[in-house]
Order: sequence, then structure tokens, then C-alpha cells
Amino acid sequence: MEVGEPDFAPPKIVGTALSEACSKGYTRYGRARGRQEVLDALARHVSEKFHPTPQENVMVSPGARFAIYSAITTLLSPGDEIIIIEPAWPAYRECALNSGIKIRAIATTLEDRWEPDPGRIEDVTSPNTKMIILNYPNNPTGKILPEKLQDDIVEIAVKNNLYILSDEIYSTYSKNWKSILSYEYQNSIITQSFSKSHAMTGLRIGYAIAHNKIIDRISKLAALCLTSISEPIQYAAMKALEADTSEFADTMQRRLDVMSREAGRIGLEFASPDGAMYLFARTGIDGARLADEALRHGLAVAPGEGFGRYGDYIRISACQNEKTLIDGMNILSGLIGEYR
Amino acid sequence: MEVGEPDFAPPKIVGTALSEACSKGYTRYGRARGRQEVLDALARHVSEKFHPTPQENVMVSPGARFAIYSAITTLLSPGDEIIIIEPAWPAYRECALNSGIKIRAIATTLEDRWEPDPGRIEDVTSPNTKMIILNYPNNPTGKILPEKLQDDIVEIAVKNNLYILSDEIYSTYSKNWKSILSYEYQNSIITQSFSKSHAMTGLRIGYAIAHNKIIDRISKLAALCLTSISEPIQYAAMKALEADTSEFADTMQRRLDVMSREAGRIGLEFASPDGAMYLFARTGIDGARLADEALRHGLAVAPGEGFGRYGDYIRISACQNEKTLIDGMNILSGLIGEYR
Repeated sequence: MEVGEPDFAPPKIVGTALSEACSKGYTRYGRARGRQEVLDALARHVSEKFHPTPQENVMVSPGARFAIYSAITTLLSPGDEIIIIEPAWPAYRECALNSGIKIRAIATTLEDRWEPDPGRIEDVTSPNTKMIILNYPNNPTGKILPEKLQDDIVEIAVKNNLYILSDEIYSTYSKNWKSILSYEYQNSIITQSFSKSHAMTGLRIGYAIAHNKIIDRISKLAALCLTSISEPIQYAAMKALEADTSEFADTMQRRLDVMSREAGRIGLEFASPDGAMYLFARTGIDGARLADEALRHGLAVAPGEGFGRYGDYIRISACQNEKTLIDGMNILSGLIGEYR
Repeated sequence: MEVGEPDFAPPKIVGTALSEACSKGYTRYGRARGRQEVLDALARHVSEKFHPTPQENVMVSPGARFAIYSAITTLLSPGDEIIIIEPAWPAYRECALNSGIKIRAIATTLEDRWEPDPGRIEDVTSPNTKMIILNYPNNPTGKILPEKLQDDIVEIAVKNNLYILSDEIYSTYSKNWKSILSYEYQNSIITQSFSKSHAMTGLRIGYAIAHNKIIDRISKLAALCLTSISEPIQYAAMKALEADTSEFADTMQRRLDVMSREAGRIGLEFASPDGAMYLFARTGIDGARLADEALRHGLAVAPGEGFGRYGDYIRISACQNEKTLIDGMNILSGLIGEYR
């Protein structure tokens, strides 16, 4: 219950697509931004599902992580500042620090239902601030921002000419959520992935959506370090778009409900997740210590400190069946009882 | 006849492996350096073919290019110097410049049979010099260094504690060639790929061999920007090792012989390639202009200026069948005749 990796198998069509890839000619060098028909298919998918998007605003990426790394590395310069709303997936911070970018962290709290204060965002924004990272539905809290609050944050970003890097990879598991694409802001970069939506973590395939000029800049780094993106995997992703994965979303929602119920039962403090596939809970015990102890009892959870200054939190992943989740919560309950 | 991409199809076993990958469980996140059984298989392959190598000295990479990018980016710091022997694949220079590394280029000449003068290498080596790149069999010249000269260059690198980054991806098409692995130098990094050896360019899979401490450093960047390497593609590469690709090498050698014969016939100046899959020829005409003109006549070649200060050279790739190669050389002959 530690890793953010669904226990689902990829849709059957993915296996079929991989078996066809060589005979369909998906074995050659291509453009770094992706094969044309794959970009066309992705643009159609994004247009239907999120917001009308032309294919020239799409690029393929070996996982959303590479798109995030590339966007931070190529759009910003050493000394620039980036706003990260915490708790946050540690990769944003790591990619920024690797490129000499300074972090302006905005800590949110359980008491504020994980909602950042727009005033705080304005306060930390200086002429050196060049980007804000949004990740809703959120890892680790499952939070989806109220629409008005999201509108306000986008307005601040637009006013200060910040790039918005919006990591939306948990959107398929969520309702009542509005893509940053819908603001039609020319300095936004949206990252998406097949990892969670199609249980294709190990295939390493995702995509980014941004203005063509931004895609041009980002994809230069892909050309430099990757030449192009694995063609059989691009083909498998294109075919995966035809699969109905609504069952994944339904299952994940049921599991989150079970986890919330169990977490309440054993006395954890948390906000019920609006989406994504995690529960971020305060236990009153040092999260690293609790995670170590849990591991000795056969349960893996992620300590909160990985996501910011959340030492007495843990992230519990709903990527297991309901029985395993309940068993895990019982182990946790026993451990917490011992500590108290 | 421009791109370095064999016209062969990947071995049949690659298609079979891709069709099996999902059912064999190659769909999950893994270690950035690669799946254990893939590393084991690669280590056995390298040990049999080049030099005894333990699995902990091997890492998988999405193409050799990413291993080269990672090695340059993670082992060197801005302001460090790197020695590149020209003519050279432009990616070395581009990766170095992208990381703020200074280039110390050593130009070799056709008159010297593309052999660098060890004295020149010593001359350009300063305390800031941290790496030398070797690429034999060479792109674009097809050169393989005489063993004594290679020994001397390695000795200079060892004496000055330079990393040796040896790009050996053309080795499968070549005889009378000695891997840098055989020197057992702890600061060497060897990059290999399935692109040329197994006609798997579009699958994007290669590997690096280096001391475990170096692999640790390099694979941290892979973890940061890729999480891990596509699992179905790792599986396909592991299976591809079982294929007999000696026919590729024989075919490429026949084509190089045909190209050399034709190039001699039409009066180009060149050194017959010892290996790889290119012919680098002086035409006495500006290479960019000649390449443009050739393209209008249906022939693509790469201008020499991409490989260093070789403005009146072109690189001709042997990645086509013999008839196409002969037709291409005839087009070239006609164009050169017009210019003279």
C-alpha cells in the first residue's frame, strides 16, 4: 500500500498492440515529439475528454515524469524560482533542484482542507518566479480544488506570466474536476500518462499538452537525450485509447471509500480524497518510524516526510484489493494502538 | 543513404517477445538501471562477446544516446573539458554543450587515415580535462584504430585520470576491433545499443557498462527523469540476444565493399571503412550544397560539416540494398561531374 501503482493489468488491447507493432512498422526512428498518427489520436482523445486541442500542441513522452523533467529543465534557468504547493510528489522538487531552480514551497494543511491561500501565492511570487506546479487531483491528498479557488490561482499565474505546469495524471479516477487546459492559457503545460489511467506503469508512456512553441522547446531535450520515443510503446498507447477503463475508476473509487471508512474507524485524521488513489492521514506518530514498524508487520506505506513537512503523516495507496486494504488498515490500527 | 538506420527488420524473436511481454508480467515499475534478469542476460552476452563483466556493472538505457547524455551530464560539471576526436557524431558535442562542458576537439585527417596523434591529445589535456570520447568503429569514417595507437590513447587517459566514454555501437559490424572494456580501466564507460546490431532503432534500447559506482551515479539521472526503462522493450532486448544476427554484419560488409568500389570508380577521396556502416568521402565540393542538390535528385546524404570542420565531405550510409547504393553513387557521380 506504498507505491502508486494500480494492481490492475493493462487492457487486453495493449498486449495485442505490442504483438502487432513490428508488423505494423513501428520499429524505426521517428520525430522526438512522437509519431504523427499517435499525436492525432491523442489530440482527439484530449479534445473529447478534456478540452479541444490540436495535434501540434501534443507531444509523447516516456512517462509523465520525463515531460515534467523536460518542462522544468528547458523552460527555466538556474536561479529561477518555482512554486510548489505541498504536500507534493517529490519529483517536482527533485527535478527543480537538479536544474538549479529555487523552490518556493507553499504548505497547505489538513485544517484548511489542503487548500492553498491565493494571498500566500501572491506573497511568494517575485520577478524571479517563473512557474507554478499544480497537481489536482492531488498526490498524496486526493484533493481537487474548488473551481473558484483554481480560477483564482490561474489568474495569479496569468497576471505574473508564470508557466503553469499542471500534472493531471490522476484525472481519470476523478469527477468534478476541471483541466487547466480549459483556461486556454498559452503558458500552461499539462502532463498526462497511461500509467494510472490504463495500468501501464512499466510501459513508460505519457504525453504533454502545451502551446506548440513550448512543445518545440521541450521536445528538443527529448531529441538530445532520447532521439525518439519507443515506437511499439507509442503504438500500444494509441491502441489503449480504444479501451474502456471506466471499471478502473469505479474500482478505485470503491477502494477509496473503503479506506476512508476504515481510516475513520481506526481514528486517523484525514480529509476524504476527492479523487486520485491515495489517503493522506495524520497518525500523531512519526511517519518514518511508523512506516518502518509497519513494514516489519508486512505492510508498506509511504512516510509523509517525502511530500513536505508532514512528519506525522503517512500516505496509504489504494492500489490493492479491498480485503488487502482492510487487512492493512487493521495492522496500522494495532501499531497505532501500541504507540498511544 | 543519409540516416544511420539499417533497412533490416528486427529479428523475428523481437515480435514474439513483444507479444509475450504483458503475459510475462513485464508491465510494472522497476529499478532505473533495469530488470535483474535483463542485466544478467546482458552481462552474460558482454562477457562472451567482449570481456568478462559482472551484472552490477551493466545498466539498461532507452538507446545508447541516453547513456551518453547521462554519463556526460552526471559525471562532469559545468566548466569541465571533454576531448572529442573529430570527425564525430554530433550528439557528443551537443550533450556536452547542453551541460556547460567545454569541448577540446582534435581534428583528424584523411591523410593521416583518421588516426589521432597521441601527442595532440596530451597537449590539449589540462587539469580541467575530465573525459575523452572514443567511438571506434567510427561514425562517420568507419575507422578502427590500430591496437598500439588505441593502447597509447588509453594510457594517456589513465595517466590523466580521464573518464573514457567509449561508444561501441558499431562493433557488431566489425572485426579486428578491441573493446575498451578489455583494458579493465575503472573510469571507462562503454555504451552499446540494439539499434544497429539488431535493427531495433525505433524500439530505443541500449545499455552501458562501467564500474558499479559509475552506474550508480548515471542511473540516478534515469531514475529522476524516466523512473525506469520500458519493461516490454527490456524483455524484447533480452530475447533479441538469442537471435543470430551475423547475416546483418555480412550484408553490411558486402555493402561497404560495394560502396568503396563505387566511390573509387567515381573518383571520391576516402579511406576504406574498417567497420561501422558509413563511407566518409571528400568530394571537393561544399557538402551542404552537394547534399541539397542530391536531395533534389532523389538521393539523401549527410553533409560533412555535421561531424566537425569537414565542409567538403559527405557521409554516405550503407543502410540500403546494393542496387540502391549503386544508383545513389551514380547520381552523386553525375552531380560531381557537373560541378567540376
